[in-house]
Amino acid sequence: MRAIPDPVQNLIDAFSRLPGIGPKTASRLAFYLLKASDEVSFDLAKALESMKTKTSHCRLCFNITMAGEELCDICASSTRNDDLLCVVEEPLDVIAIERTGAYQGKYHVLQGVLSPIEGIGPDQIKIFPLLERLKNHPVEEVILATNPSMEGDTTALYLQQRILPLGIKVSRLARGLPVGGDIEYADQNTLQRALSGRQSVD
Amino acid sequence: MRAIPDPVQNLIDAFSRLPGIGPKTASRLAFYLLKASDEVSFDLAKALESMKTKTSHCRLCFNITMAGEELCDICASSTRNDDLLCVVEEPLDVIAIERTGAYQGKYHVLQGVLSPIEGIGPDQIKIFPLLERLKNHPVEEVILATNPSMEGDTTALYLQQRILPLGIKVSRLARGLPVGGDIEYADQNTLQRALSGRQSVD
Repeated sequence: MRAIPDPVQNLIDAFSRLPGIGPKTASRLAFYLLKASDEVSFDLAKALESMKTKTSHCRLCFNITMAGEELCDICASSTRNDDLLCVVEEPLDVIAIERTGAYQGKYHVLQGVLSPIEGIGPDQIKIFPLLERLKNHPVEEVILATNPSMEGDTTALYLQQRILPLGIKVSRLARGLPVGGDIEYADQNTLQRALSGRQSVD
Repeated sequence: MRAIPDPVQNLIDAFSRLPGIGPKTASRLAFYLLKASDEVSFDLAKALESMKTKTSHCRLCFNITMAGEELCDICASSTRNDDLLCVVEEPLDVIAIERTGAYQGKYHVLQGVLSPIEGIGPDQIKIFPLLERLKNHPVEEVILATNPSMEGDTTALYLQQRILPLGIKVSRLARGLPVGGDIEYADQNTLQRALSGRQSVD
């Protein structure tokens, strides 16, 4: 007895393939859409298709940009500081840093992170275009803003060894207690970092 | 400075409209799809569209069915028991009950629940088609399988008062401790129901 008609089951399967969406959430979404107005489903379908067809990557920093545009808005901007380059793993990281409003330099998106276990070496991510970019257009400082994870640290170390010889200052984002955090609940590594990176108060 | 190109932002907005998906999950999904192969997005888009165009409701029980089919598989089946009718709120409830394999009767999907606060009365859900169905084709027993919530209980009470005068036996799903549950952690209402509904052991 087929309790779920095929078109509904297909949608449940398609949702289940997304990260963080299990079979239960997938059915909940499918049955919600079944009850909701057609527009909600069709808008989502249209958005999915046009995201794939209407976006591309910036030729310079590899952030996402509109298809047909060579450079992203940030690279094309004349008001941003050309002497600062922030290296991040993913486009989402650019958005997070932009949201702070505290950074006025430019970006380079690696589109991934070194991970020997998953077979991702320097050739698989945008490391060589970054080194090429720095050789052609040296900057004053490169800020390595990879994630504070094992892979992020490995990638930062690799980049640091490649960029320092070019005579460019290299920095990393500060590690320590998150704002609003609790020392009591901080994990051991974070607390160790916060101690070793303590800053003197004048 | 536009950090997220419009096509990506549109997809994030479309995902955010789904229940249980906030802005953060929506961006995570959108950026995942951006990196994933085109197929994943296109399959989801196609599944969304075809679910809306290729499904319809069973003329008899109001469960979902393929467009063009008058009756769903369960209503059309000749092997199911015609003397038992299980009344549920949503198509998902049919699937849950089917999954148990413990029920061989037919169904009626109310497509909602009575909720005076939200202005949902008997006319807004499939109550009259149910009463009509019972008058034309009386069954031996109606099992009221609405949710054990305030609205579900109200709906069940309303239905019970309408169905009993037709001379049809009416039953409700048992309330009590969930299997695998802990008395220690059971809420007060569940425990009260489990006590008042206790069954003698012979």
